[in-house]
Amino acid sequence: MNPRRKSKPIQIGRVTVGGDAPIVVQSMTKTDTRDVMSTIWHIKELEDFGCELVRVAVPDEQAAKAIKTIKRETSLPVIADIHFDYRLALAALEAGADGLRLNPGNISEQEKVTTVVKAARDRNIPIRIGVNAGSLPRTANPELTTAQQMVEAALSQIRLLENLDFDLIKVSLKAFDVPTTIEAYRDIASKIPYPLHIGITEAGTPRTGIIRSTVGISTLLYMGIGDTIRVSLTAHPNEEVKAAYEILKSLNLRQYGPVLVSCPTCGRTEVDLIKLAEAVEQELLKTSKPIKVAVMGCVVNGPGEARDADVGIACGKGRGVIFKKGEQIKTIEEKDFLRELMAEVERL
Amino acid sequence: MNPRRKSKPIQIGRVTVGGDAPIVVQSMTKTDTRDVMSTIWHIKELEDFGCELVRVAVPDEQAAKAIKTIKRETSLPVIADIHFDYRLALAALEAGADGLRLNPGNISEQEKVTTVVKAARDRNIPIRIGVNAGSLPRTANPELTTAQQMVEAALSQIRLLENLDFDLIKVSLKAFDVPTTIEAYRDIASKIPYPLHIGITEAGTPRTGIIRSTVGISTLLYMGIGDTIRVSLTAHPNEEVKAAYEILKSLNLRQYGPVLVSCPTCGRTEVDLIKLAEAVEQELLKTSKPIKVAVMGCVVNGPGEARDADVGIACGKGRGVIFKKGEQIKTIEEKDFLRELMAEVERL
Repeated sequence: MNPRRKSKPIQIGRVTVGGDAPIVVQSMTKTDTRDVMSTIWHIKELEDFGCELVRVAVPDEQAAKAIKTIKRETSLPVIADIHFDYRLALAALEAGADGLRLNPGNISEQEKVTTVVKAARDRNIPIRIGVNAGSLPRTANPELTTAQQMVEAALSQIRLLENLDFDLIKVSLKAFDVPTTIEAYRDIASKIPYPLHIGITEAGTPRTGIIRSTVGISTLLYMGIGDTIRVSLTAHPNEEVKAAYEILKSLNLRQYGPVLVSCPTCGRTEVDLIKLAEAVEQELLKTSKPIKVAVMGCVVNGPGEARDADVGIACGKGRGVIFKKGEQIKTIEEKDFLRELMAEVERL
Repeated sequence: MNPRRKSKPIQIGRVTVGGDAPIVVQSMTKTDTRDVMSTIWHIKELEDFGCELVRVAVPDEQAAKAIKTIKRETSLPVIADIHFDYRLALAALEAGADGLRLNPGNISEQEKVTTVVKAARDRNIPIRIGVNAGSLPRTANPELTTAQQMVEAALSQIRLLENLDFDLIKVSLKAFDVPTTIEAYRDIASKIPYPLHIGITEAGTPRTGIIRSTVGISTLLYMGIGDTIRVSLTAHPNEEVKAAYEILKSLNLRQYGPVLVSCPTCGRTEVDLIKLAEAVEQELLKTSKPIKVAVMGCVVNGPGEARDADVGIACGKGRGVIFKKGEQIKTIEEKDFLRELMAEVERL
């Protein structure tokens, strides 16, 4: 794995993004921001799932003002998502937003951006320059590839901010097309010192969107690129947060709760392993211990193949063995598989 | 994206693996191979989902013999998965298997391997050397990293086969740990000319295993490594095949059925977009056209953000617009969203 790209850290509320800080998991509320009660409830739920930064849409003045109450009643740093109207950015800053996201494709007038940047600078609030392949500035050069156009749009906005002596910058360059997205991030990663927010836009429903997001995000992370991630899904945002942690856990970049190792089963398996693994997974949702648990369908191969697991079960016909770190510690009957395994998990 | 590594193609039945052939999707049956009827039914179902190669476990003589009937009643090339007993490999060849998978960690005696290789050579049947991090040969050098031990185990077996003038070789090096797996494949990719079967072993249940498999497989594919993929899940193998295609589609490496673009929704969305996207996804399962369909929650941004889609809908309060390639063609009412969109899909 490439060592992580060194970026200049920024502070969004109490959360550091970039530098040596852990890669931050973020999401976005899907409630109407003006519906303050629902939005607060939504954010608290996201926090329970491990979300570390939350973004809210700010379509109008009332939504901008709602940030004040939302901030008072929740503890996650709140980023205001602004499109088209720079005055909403000013109102969100006024209401106490911890960060702003601006899309250079739809707020590009220099004068308006300048007004927002000065207000953010006065309050020490970072700005994400959030470029989206589908809403590039009209000035984009059509002779460039989409990835190059995205990078150009970001760089031009970055220069504007830098000229105003503002460097609390974070950048994203999202497309639906994964190779385009990766190409854009790789290009900009070598050109700017700022932290990168990575993700794939409009990735779809969980069935396909999780895979599409994972392909893009994990490839970049493996290259050492990315300081905060958002998995965009057409689904409840808790699903986004769960997927984000699974990506980070798979690359050993974050620990978060248990890891379940389970074999795919095959024609050698003599128990209903899928059912058992699903049951163990459900039980493990109740714990936040960073442990590795294995559910294997083969007494001969199982303990060896999952020897890294803290505890595991290898199932044969009617009987199974419980093992810890590859050592068999107990033989049990099929009816006790789930109970005995979970008892060992409890003991860890 | 790196250009694909040039590998020496092999033929497994009618399917070419390696060289310029499309990256092949494979899976493994989870039925008892001796239960011929169930296994045949299982394989036919896998084929319907687009599976191109299927592997069956061969735990005993009866399972090896079952391959003959299975082959007669199905059309996918069948690979026999052999552990421990080299005689089962001979029996599987006898029964007409199109490929063999051997694990050098549990059949390593030179004489036995030689017998199998000669029989495979006589029949022109390829062998996958399938190394697994959890079942390395006892002779592995513990001073090496796990990835290096995996590569050494494969190279030593490869040399044995080459010395017997056998080169119908495919190699896999799977671990549960994703960075270990990637490191092993990257290393061997530059050392041998043979096609690589890539995957993550014991990746778990769909919720987490799809993500873990995708992280490993997609990172390798982006590097140009991999000629056939298997997503190992503790689930019905159809899920493995569906996930495999989504990975390949996300990297534009294969086309397979429709692609659904849908926005994650946010506080600006004024319809139940999650429900609509899920319904469209269900409808799209009925078509195999390689089309791109978009479901967007925003009339202002939607058509632009999804301008690459063949057809799409952008939803506002009570009304939406149907667009084709970014051009708005019709305004419709909320009750007609699904019907009108699917009618346009039908027309493509």
